[in-house]
Amino acid sequence: MSRFWSRSVSSLDPYVPGEQPLVHNLIKLNTNEHPLGPSPRVLEAIAQASTASLRLYPDPNATALTQAIARRYGLAAANVFLGNGSDEVLAHVFYGLLKQDRPLFLPDLTYGFYPTYCRLYGIDYHFVPLDEQFQIRAEDYFPGQAEVQAGAIIIANPNAPTGHALNLGQIKDILSGNPDIPVVVDEAYVDFGAQSAVSLISDHPNLLVVHTFSKSRSLAGLRVGYAMGSAELIDGLERVKNSFNSYPLDSLAQAGALAAIEDDAYFEAACRQVIETRESLRQSLRELGFEVLPSSTNFLLARHPDHKGEDLAAWLRERAILVRHFNKPRIRDFLRITVGTPEQCRCLIEALIACVKP
Amino acid sequence: MSRFWSRSVSSLDPYVPGEQPLVHNLIKLNTNEHPLGPSPRVLEAIAQASTASLRLYPDPNATALTQAIARRYGLAAANVFLGNGSDEVLAHVFYGLLKQDRPLFLPDLTYGFYPTYCRLYGIDYHFVPLDEQFQIRAEDYFPGQAEVQAGAIIIANPNAPTGHALNLGQIKDILSGNPDIPVVVDEAYVDFGAQSAVSLISDHPNLLVVHTFSKSRSLAGLRVGYAMGSAELIDGLERVKNSFNSYPLDSLAQAGALAAIEDDAYFEAACRQVIETRESLRQSLRELGFEVLPSSTNFLLARHPDHKGEDLAAWLRERAILVRHFNKPRIRDFLRITVGTPEQCRCLIEALIACVKP
Repeated sequence: MSRFWSRSVSSLDPYVPGEQPLVHNLIKLNTNEHPLGPSPRVLEAIAQASTASLRLYPDPNATALTQAIARRYGLAAANVFLGNGSDEVLAHVFYGLLKQDRPLFLPDLTYGFYPTYCRLYGIDYHFVPLDEQFQIRAEDYFPGQAEVQAGAIIIANPNAPTGHALNLGQIKDILSGNPDIPVVVDEAYVDFGAQSAVSLISDHPNLLVVHTFSKSRSLAGLRVGYAMGSAELIDGLERVKNSFNSYPLDSLAQAGALAAIEDDAYFEAACRQVIETRESLRQSLRELGFEVLPSSTNFLLARHPDHKGEDLAAWLRERAILVRHFNKPRIRDFLRITVGTPEQCRCLIEALIACVKP
Repeated sequence: MSRFWSRSVSSLDPYVPGEQPLVHNLIKLNTNEHPLGPSPRVLEAIAQASTASLRLYPDPNATALTQAIARRYGLAAANVFLGNGSDEVLAHVFYGLLKQDRPLFLPDLTYGFYPTYCRLYGIDYHFVPLDEQFQIRAEDYFPGQAEVQAGAIIIANPNAPTGHALNLGQIKDILSGNPDIPVVVDEAYVDFGAQSAVSLISDHPNLLVVHTFSKSRSLAGLRVGYAMGSAELIDGLERVKNSFNSYPLDSLAQAGALAAIEDDAYFEAACRQVIETRESLRQSLRELGFEVLPSSTNFLLARHPDHKGEDLAAWLRERAILVRHFNKPRIRDFLRITVGTPEQCRCLIEALIACVKP
């Protein structure tokens, strides 16, 4: 606390991301990065961009990348908004769309950054509990289901850290039930097996879909995210962005992300590999007695009947394997395990065997 | 205007940056980029970082870069805050430090983004006019000089788009006169001939100094800026940053900026060259009848008694030379001309000769 801070600073609740250790030789299964590197074309594009013009400001509108994303999803450039990672995109979304007179509805277990944004921008919010299977129930977001009325909705689909996905019909039901308020669907993990809501944009001007290059495109290190929605939603976000930072994406990030979005063959093969490894890892964990929640993502949420999540995480850590443990109600017993390479998963299972079957 | 926007979005006043044309073969003297490229070590560092680990999240604290900047200025890492360009740093500074119960004082002619941030965060502000020579007068920022009392102060030193710099004694006077409110000195252009206030940080816990890699370090394309100040100010900024985006600097930007800050020899030679070219350009403009304001930056603000600024900018544009013209009171007659290479400046002068001495 300092007398030089603005009033609101001391009441902020900063987000704590998963650890990014500076030491190497760890098996890092704690922040849901892709186990494979990005398309080789990304590195070529970055090399070319770095020699071209780093002394010059980047294109503030990231025109080429915006157009490529629009093409990829059958949209117009006016339907695409870019940011410095989907975290920045989300920050602008909270400021520009989710701050309404009535509270924001969001799941009680979801991406931990959402309540942090609410604090930052003074947004009132209302937690909607997941059901007993740790799943979002679409009907809980229909009007009249809660004592208060929603001013806006955000859900992650698939949800994190649970891994569960609603299907397209359920998303459509939420949209149809709430045509007059913004509905944001954060699809950070969608490419690992869920259905994207992008096809619903043309019929639902209140729908915003948020994507990232950090997960399925293997580019967490490059910080690129985007949102897709009606031109009026995107226009609102552009106004916020241009009141915050004209140039959120550096030249190298623009070039690298463009190469990634254009290499669909690499992308699809890499996603397929993660999905296959996930299913095999799920099976191995079950054989060790773990309860594993269904997952449409590149991670698994799992608990063991005989061992605390905290203890398992500490055990693994001693063996140089990082997984994520959330010290939060309802999921305290679980580990969130990123799907690594088959070899990394094998090491994980061996370490767990030594713990649960000593 | 959309019914899905937050209330505040329609009252925003987005900043319009200088044009970044996608066509090449222009002489681009409109956004104060450095005429030379960055240190060659920057490209090596980027090449190395791009093959290392783009699939992984970057270090959220940019530890190595933070420490290198601290070393460069004789500070501790706890005195340094990093952001995605100094525009993002400034945004967090406005939210975290400059939003006070009393209004923010700033010059009436200065970086045009400042009032934009005020709109974004609902900050009340008070313009302090420059004097007749377009200079900031330190005494105008002493308590009791205006009808209202300042809650915080921000000045650019050297100021933009005027180019004038206060000396260290004058900055010290402003700080000593306002020990109880945050005072931010934006030194984006300081390396081209002004005195930095960094040495005053140890005695003034209310002082924050903002720097950028976009000007003197030739890395506008990489988006890295930083602030330096007391640990309590930096701590406040970290709280805001971690409520907005945990990873504002991508891996490549961190690596490139680190290489740049460590190559002082290149940096100093490149700054010297800009200063020499600036003085020669100033002389040439004077010989053509221009009034040229004194400049401690990498640009000149100049007007011609017989030609409107707008007309001169249009004339140059037809000849593929971009300069910046602000359609604003007091400086409407002026052109802001970035100091380019000697060859670019020669082309500019030739084009102007054809206009003012036909």
